[in-house]
Amino acid sequence: MELPFTSLLGIEMTGMDDGHATGELSLREELSSNPNTLIAHGGVTYSLADTVGGAAAVSVAETVTPTVDMRIDYLAPATGDVLFAEAEVVRFGGNVATVDIEVTDDDGTVLAVARGTYKTSGGSGQSPWTSSGE
Amino acid sequence: MELPFTSLLGIEMTGMDDGHATGELSLREELSSNPNTLIAHGGVTYSLADTVGGAAAVSVAETVTPTVDMRIDYLAPATGDVLFAEAEVVRFGGNVATVDIEVTDDDGTVLAVARGTYKTSGGSGQSPWTSSGE
Amino acid sequence: MELPFTSLLGIEMTGMDDGHATGELSLREELSSNPNTLIAHGGVTYSLADTVGGAAAVSVAETVTPTVDMRIDYLAPATGDVLFAEAEVVRFGGNVATVDIEVTDDDGTVLAVARGTYKTSGGSGQSPWTSSGE
Amino acid sequence: MELPFTSLLGIEMTGMDDGHATGELSLREELSSNPNTLIAHGGVTYSLADTVGGAAAVSVAETVTPTVDMRIDYLAPATGDVLFAEAEVVRFGGNVATVDIEVTDDDGTVLAVARGTYKTSGGSGQSPWTSSGE
Repeated sequence: MELPFTSLLGIEMTGMDDGHATGELSLREELSSNPNTLIAHGGVTYSLADTVGGAAAVSVAETVTPTVDMRIDYLAPATGDVLFAEAEVVRFGGNVATVDIEVTDDDGTVLAVARGTYKTSGGSGQSPWTSSGE
Repeated sequence: MELPFTSLLGIEMTGMDDGHATGELSLREELSSNPNTLIAHGGVTYSLADTVGGAAAVSVAETVTPTVDMRIDYLAPATGDVLFAEAEVVRFGGNVATVDIEVTDDDGTVLAVARGTYKTSGGSGQSPWTSSGE
Repeated sequence: MELPFTSLLGIEMTGMDDGHATGELSLREELSSNPNTLIAHGGVTYSLADTVGGAAAVSVAETVTPTVDMRIDYLAPATGDVLFAEAEVVRFGGNVATVDIEVTDDDGTVLAVARGTYKTSGGSGQSPWTSSGE
Repeated sequence: MELPFTSLLGIEMTGMDDGHATGELSLREELSSNPNTLIAHGGVTYSLADTVGGAAAVSVAETVTPTVDMRIDYLAPATGDVLFAEAEVVRFGGNVATVDIEVTDDDGTVLAVARGTYKTSGGSGQSPWTSSGE
């Protein structure tokens, strides 16, 4: 399934199984926050983290898992050629899952860490998310 | 100054003064998380929030203000034609600023709220961020 | 119902209705982070915020609403005589609610802002939270 | 140095060196969120995490390091006899540090994970935190 925004960014999923997921994207000028230097905009790093984190949640939930909330901490400038994300479900409950994500570059430098809460079920139906997902 | 990634998303800044900033983007298929319905990917909403939040910080700091960390909470699916973000600096200190951001659609529905910490000075020089910004 | 830890801190609930709650505590030496000055430890401010935020969620859910996650941002030192917290549910869904909390002192200075996700239902039963709450 | 609130909770620091810190507290009725069962209030778990996280930051900064912001995610009910926290500085910059904290019980169950941003220097002097710390 081709998803428009993840295709625009060039995110490729490389693994997704049993609460664990990995993905990557190649940094290119369009994704830079700076016209003079290649450095991923914080929103690019976030989008990769959120996408791979969601995949980890989906791998357990086997249904869409909209992001409820996410925190990202930037640890180093994202100047590498490729950004890698690895996500792990650290708690999976009937309502929500907690997922940890680490984004690294091709040198293994940790660029960012993120932690998010994802919905794991359709709930009681009164949520605006129910029929749409994110 | 044209910034590559914000241009790719189509983010337009519409105001930026004295700790306050506003910006917007038009939702289009490329920014969707779903091939069948127009619904902004969570990373699009986040990127708008982070960009407008950073502009609010810059309006006080008058220098680049890299994002240290950000939390976003999704409140409703982003299905409107236009996404608007409004940011306000709620604390500005010598090291960091705290910024609140609200993202709404053209009906005034609040789609997401975000809160971030941005660096406000070059610090002591030992930070990897010093020479680059985000 | 007397709750042990909120009693230890001296938290008093002053309102709780329809997605909104208020509470307060008097600052005293035992709650200080500093032996020489009266300044609330960050955990005191957090505990007040979490408790009042949970009450706002309970006022809609009408069942226990364990905290899933919470972020707090400290905006000013908590040196007033009394700390007030006001909480508002900004989204209430079948699985979780998002709640905003503001903590102020008796001068109206905003000391901290917090935002949390609370569980709103028992879910499917496989969660460790189900029978216990927080 | 005896700190009032950490003494009230019974937090004992057991290690603090080179960006790493550990601490613990014994759960007792006063710290419970529930009058019938011994389960640590979320504010107790948070206070332990924030305190040990701050110690990890101080171990590098060698000055007070007020908490700027913190997120905590609760993974399991805190019903053990003793709560242990372990903190690690994952980025240390001239302005702020990012610290990861894990709280476990005596069975090794992870009860909560937290991530916070701490100030690492006095900054330019215009911050309300400068002369007080948290």
